[in-house]
Amino acid sequence: MTHPEEKLKELGIELPDLTPFHPAVALGVITDANLLYTCGSTPLDKSWKGRVGEVYTTEQGYQAARECAIAQLAIAKAVLGDLGRIKRVVKVLGMVNAAPGFGETPQVIHGVSELYFEVFGEKGVHARSAVGLQALPAEVPVEVETIFEIEPSHTDYSSDADTEHDEI
Amino acid sequence: MTHPEEKLKELGIELPDLTPFHPAVALGVITDANLLYTCGSTPLDKSWKGRVGEVYTTEQGYQAARECAIAQLAIAKAVLGDLGRIKRVVKVLGMVNAAPGFGETPQVIHGVSELYFEVFGEKGVHARSAVGLQALPAEVPVEVETIFEIEPSHTDYSSDADTEHDEI
Amino acid sequence: MTHPEEKLKELGIELPDLTPFHPAVALGVITDANLLYTCGSTPLDKSWKGRVGEVYTTEQGYQAARECAIAQLAIAKAVLGDLGRIKRVVKVLGMVNAAPGFGETPQVIHGVSELYFEVFGEKGVHARSAVGLQALPAEVPVEVETIFEIEPSHTDYSSDADTEHDEI
Repeated sequence: MTHPEEKLKELGIELPDLTPFHPAVALGVITDANLLYTCGSTPLDKSWKGRVGEVYTTEQGYQAARECAIAQLAIAKAVLGDLGRIKRVVKVLGMVNAAPGFGETPQVIHGVSELYFEVFGEKGVHARSAVGLQALPAEVPVEVETIFEIEPSHTDYSSDADTEHDEI
Repeated sequence: MTHPEEKLKELGIELPDLTPFHPAVALGVITDANLLYTCGSTPLDKSWKGRVGEVYTTEQGYQAARECAIAQLAIAKAVLGDLGRIKRVVKVLGMVNAAPGFGETPQVIHGVSELYFEVFGEKGVHARSAVGLQALPAEVPVEVETIFEIEPSHTDYSSDADTEHDEI
Repeated sequence: MTHPEEKLKELGIELPDLTPFHPAVALGVITDANLLYTCGSTPLDKSWKGRVGEVYTTEQGYQAARECAIAQLAIAKAVLGDLGRIKRVVKVLGMVNAAPGFGETPQVIHGVSELYFEVFGEKGVHARSAVGLQALPAEVPVEVETIFEIEPSHTDYSSDADTEHDEI
């Protein structure tokens, strides 16, 4: 299987550098049971503003969701040092800033699911909920959080990756 | 204690066969720490459409929530092969497609909690949040996701159940 | 490091006694992998009623969120017997009952994050999502749920604390 970071290169996707926005909030936290919980991500392009089904179409929402997924991978990279440490994607909560009566939240969140599948293959197949919210930070159209499972052993990774293994 | 599938029979509940709706999305994923994360379920009857507190009463919402819980058990059955492998219900997120100002989300999600308690007894007692959303897939009134903890050892289950232990 | 319960005393915060509100719903559930999942908490003062961005300002929402965090610590205390058993705060889901177009959900949920940081220091730094919902139980302005990781060994705690280690 292609390394997920190779796959990202093939797709022409570059992960941005992300840093925590508040001293009390980590980009992600790893538990002893090898689960990485991420902060919810909003789209990378900060000009997105408004609801899907009102300001944005379902197709535009899909693109915003894909940007959220890229931001989630940037978080994983920042926390883990190497996306190869990801054993599988476990769970996605996809939250769409939705107009009243908007019913296509799954079609929007496919933008997340399909990116994870492209990058991780079978390891990217995940459980998820794709739902419509009343409001999101700074009125962005989509927010996504993920639970990743990581490999229990770190011995096959470089010490460089290890020193970057900081949750904040 | 009665086996949960016996209990379902006593209650006259038959679990439907569920299959994943997208190649990137599993019905459920099991982590190495024996947690089963499910996809969010909507009601089994696909004619439900509209908000609780607007189209539906709290009592109708309760019934829709109960159908979501049955769908969650169908997911668990599809992933695990045997509901007897469930050690306990850990966490429920109950999401109600709610009219503005609707405050009875807990009374709706009791439809989930009470079914789990009927089926699993003390093992069915769970932590939960019961909240109101702006929009749900296809405008259904309720969506529910669950975290189940499963027994660590599979040795006491038939090899048949084991071969069905596929997450997709 | 100061014991979290000492820290609460310094802050003048007293944890209320909480009991489950329904026989099927626990205040919190601990998994074998040492994760404590809590029920969603609403503000301690039951007179809060209405949306942030409509009835309440962002600053008032922050106070309501802080009350939710205190209620979450009261749950952890009830389940664990001793807040010193908490290894770290893993994940917060902060849900704001939001007016349409309200975009300051992070500023509201800082009321949770900052309290956890005050009480637990670095162990209180967590992943989170801070989002806007359509409706919450009894129309409260904020609801919060948390995943705590707890210490795997109980041997350094008194047997009194152990006998209180009941999930319901």
